[in-house]
Amino acid sequence: MDIGPYSFEEFLERATAFHGNPAPGLVIGGYMVEVAKSRLSEGTIFDAVVETPKCLPDAVQLLTPCSAGNGWMKVINWGLYALTLYDKYTGKGVRVWLDPARLEAWPEIRAWYLKLKPAKEQDKDRLLEEMRRAGESVFGVRPVRVKIERLKKKSMGTIGICPICKEGYPSKDGRVCRKCQGESLYMEMES
Amino acid sequence: MDIGPYSFEEFLERATAFHGNPAPGLVIGGYMVEVAKSRLSEGTIFDAVVETPKCLPDAVQLLTPCSAGNGWMKVINWGLYALTLYDKYTGKGVRVWLDPARLEAWPEIRAWYLKLKPAKEQDKDRLLEEMRRAGESVFGVRPVRVKIERLKKKSMGTIGICPICKEGYPSKDGRVCRKCQGESLYMEMES
Repeated sequence: MDIGPYSFEEFLERATAFHGNPAPGLVIGGYMVEVAKSRLSEGTIFDAVVETPKCLPDAVQLLTPCSAGNGWMKVINWGLYALTLYDKYTGKGVRVWLDPARLEAWPEIRAWYLKLKPAKEQDKDRLLEEMRRAGESVFGVRPVRVKIERLKKKSMGTIGICPICKEGYPSKDGRVCRKCQGESLYMEMES
Repeated sequence: MDIGPYSFEEFLERATAFHGNPAPGLVIGGYMVEVAKSRLSEGTIFDAVVETPKCLPDAVQLLTPCSAGNGWMKVINWGLYALTLYDKYTGKGVRVWLDPARLEAWPEIRAWYLKLKPAKEQDKDRLLEEMRRAGESVFGVRPVRVKIERLKKKSMGTIGICPICKEGYPSKDGRVCRKCQGESLYMEMES
């Protein structure tokens, strides 16, 4: 089954180019995105919520205008294989998830999704083939209304210069930037 | 000045296709990514940290193999216009940031970065032209060592079926999934 404007094989190529490999999660995610898109009214300006950081965000980025950097895609880490596309003004949209109850006929998808066997023992060709054949049949789909006020971008407010590192930072974060507030991920190199 | 494998104009096109518009933050971010890449040893397998969700993640996604969905790019919201590329095994890498002290000669970049005038009053053509001419000259660059243990992916562990919504979820999250733990972003539609 095609994935949006792509044949299955073309989508594998696009997935490899963007994601590094044609990950199963990206392939089934492609079908999920397309189902969600198909349920929105023509011309809807939509944003996306993705409920896992694993693979699924890249399906959204490949098949919609929403990206990590333009603010139209939010990733929340609930560990759920689900996404929602919704009208950015009203919050009305559709949530699509991978439904365990629909996986009886697809043992490789089920084993992959529920982590029933180690990655090494997966038969990846068979898994992708099951995904291609299953297409949209393994998803739950439900209209939802997103609480958009919870996802609104907060303004950064005014920008100050951090007195420690001299970089620009949101003044509302305090007297010094968050990196200098002991949250640093970095050790300076000794050299 | 070119941006990696692209001419300035080609990069604007790529930025528009992926991001929706040729945002200034993406353009200057493109130069930042290329500076960081140029300081890594040839063949380094690297991950990325981006210190703002605004625009910069898309520069990384356009110019490196790192993406939101493959786990090689982490976005932290410190509100700093900075990114780090680092060896994923040793944590050694280079941090690049936009340096206010180097912006005296570039009034439009300075006004944009420090939010000195409303977006409406920005001269976007002039801003992009300043970015093209300034190229790498406006960045601070410093070798760093990333505390990689803080960024390691935590295993999802075993997957259970949420007794409320019947979706697969990480069992370690508790008796029900996080969406059903009152964290929902959704209202069900009435219809």
